[in-house]
Amino acid sequence: MQAEQRCAILSIMEADFIRWLRSNLPAHPLLVVGPGDDAAVLGHAEGQQTVLTVDMLADGVDFRLAETDPRRVGRKALAVNLSDLAAMASRPLAAVIAVMLPRRDAYQLAVALYEGMLPLAEQHHLALAGGDTNTWDGPLVISITLLGAPTGAGPLCRSGAMPGDRIVVTGAFGGSILGKHLDFQPRVEEAMLLHQRYRLHAGVDVSDGLSLDLYRMASESGCGAVIHALSIPIADDAHRLASQLADGSTALEHALGDGEDFELILAVPPEEAQRMLAEQPLGVQLTDIGQFVSEPGLWLLDAEGHRRPLRPQGWEY
Amino acid sequence: MQAEQRCAILSIMEADFIRWLRSNLPAHPLLVVGPGDDAAVLGHAEGQQTVLTVDMLADGVDFRLAETDPRRVGRKALAVNLSDLAAMASRPLAAVIAVMLPRRDAYQLAVALYEGMLPLAEQHHLALAGGDTNTWDGPLVISITLLGAPTGAGPLCRSGAMPGDRIVVTGAFGGSILGKHLDFQPRVEEAMLLHQRYRLHAGVDVSDGLSLDLYRMASESGCGAVIHALSIPIADDAHRLASQLADGSTALEHALGDGEDFELILAVPPEEAQRMLAEQPLGVQLTDIGQFVSEPGLWLLDAEGHRRPLRPQGWEY
Repeated sequence: MQAEQRCAILSIMEADFIRWLRSNLPAHPLLVVGPGDDAAVLGHAEGQQTVLTVDMLADGVDFRLAETDPRRVGRKALAVNLSDLAAMASRPLAAVIAVMLPRRDAYQLAVALYEGMLPLAEQHHLALAGGDTNTWDGPLVISITLLGAPTGAGPLCRSGAMPGDRIVVTGAFGGSILGKHLDFQPRVEEAMLLHQRYRLHAGVDVSDGLSLDLYRMASESGCGAVIHALSIPIADDAHRLASQLADGSTALEHALGDGEDFELILAVPPEEAQRMLAEQPLGVQLTDIGQFVSEPGLWLLDAEGHRRPLRPQGWEY
Repeated sequence: MQAEQRCAILSIMEADFIRWLRSNLPAHPLLVVGPGDDAAVLGHAEGQQTVLTVDMLADGVDFRLAETDPRRVGRKALAVNLSDLAAMASRPLAAVIAVMLPRRDAYQLAVALYEGMLPLAEQHHLALAGGDTNTWDGPLVISITLLGAPTGAGPLCRSGAMPGDRIVVTGAFGGSILGKHLDFQPRVEEAMLLHQRYRLHAGVDVSDGLSLDLYRMASESGCGAVIHALSIPIADDAHRLASQLADGSTALEHALGDGEDFELILAVPPEEAQRMLAEQPLGVQLTDIGQFVSEPGLWLLDAEGHRRPLRPQGWEY
């Protein structure tokens, strides 16, 4: 619950602040997509677009350095950013990396962080372009900025879902704290492939929780969403965590609210969704978990067919 | 002296780490200029180039939040990055901003940081494209990534100085701790204008100290540099600081070693330098302070015409 409470505070502050940004940042001819989506999109005079995203991670917030191989920390920092590009169905091009390193063993730590990033960068053909390396008396902070290029029909935004669209997700949800939050595969190639082969209306990656990120996607699209409890792919680790914690929380609740799954939620027109689910073109399972509806809000349809309001977890608790 | 000692530790660590990066980062077709310069340069298949730079600042290292208006902190964080683009003679396009905010008054602090950035962004026609806003129990950390476009003859690197080139600087040096380190004007427009009108061989901005950054520029260019003590433009604040500290340090020493002047050092062919100095095309003074030489090293030519080795300050102390 601590993690959820932290997330709640973060989200309210960040949501308020994004509202402030949206009404106070002046319009700029370069800015095609501004604050509030998974990445910004710049439209250049020559016609190309650049996708730009940044994520900052800190010891004690996003990982615990004392208990974690720093290679896994470096990998996670890069993977989280790649997941934001995946959410925009964009191709990774280059990364710059800024760090505040605890003074003790700063050099060794910097090398280990990069050793964790290098294989993932290579896998995604990403250029690591250096950055800014500092030392201080505080905990490790690492900030990675990725530059990418849109693919197919252009950047996939979170605001394009339409009532009637199916809600299609990759993979399974919940219990990521048991390991997946460090070792997940960002769905970069998957997003580009889907964006090329099917008509997608919108996409996000699940960083803060399936229900919360779906709620945001629906809100930004000016609609609501109904999900089917029985359809939600629940990760084995969600079951494991529920039984370990023995606090009354169910595996379904973990799947809905844990966060850091870094799977994709896509808004797909019904006939496209049908084709996509029949073809299952990815190495990871695609699942239809419900649909977008015109009425704003979030609902869970239970096994008995009862529809009840669902609070986006990690947000109001 | 504390600041200089900190700088020394930083620089040795960062220099070692950049060496590691250069031998361990795989070559990538996108990467025209990699780690170690003021910014990275990406060369796209379509022929355009993108300049990418990041700087991370932290409370207690680069500013003291308890004693400083957060608007000035936000402004400095952006200005430091703009100065890196100036060093590459590149045009600022867009910024993404990542922050770790102390939990208390996080929203107010985030707004104040942006209020400090907005006028500077507008002045340089820079799009603020949002970023990542987090809260934690640690001190304020702010990381800004700037995307820019090369101008004129392409990105100006630090490694292009040739023996015989004149060393031309903008503005005056030393004592920036008395205020300039927060309120300096990044030399963005100046660099673009000079790059367009004159043939420049190399450039850096002075973040860590005139002597240290000049030494780095000479080293990267495979040559040395001789500077004339009497030619160095010494800031009023360097005199003020020397008399305030009364520790035996001279204003000249402050000019050579203080850092955070964020002025430019340029390597300019002699005939071009002569023309540039005669024309003085900028609102800020251009000064010839010496020349690059083929022998590696750094020397100071004193008033009596004696040449003695100069230790790059903030580096070996």
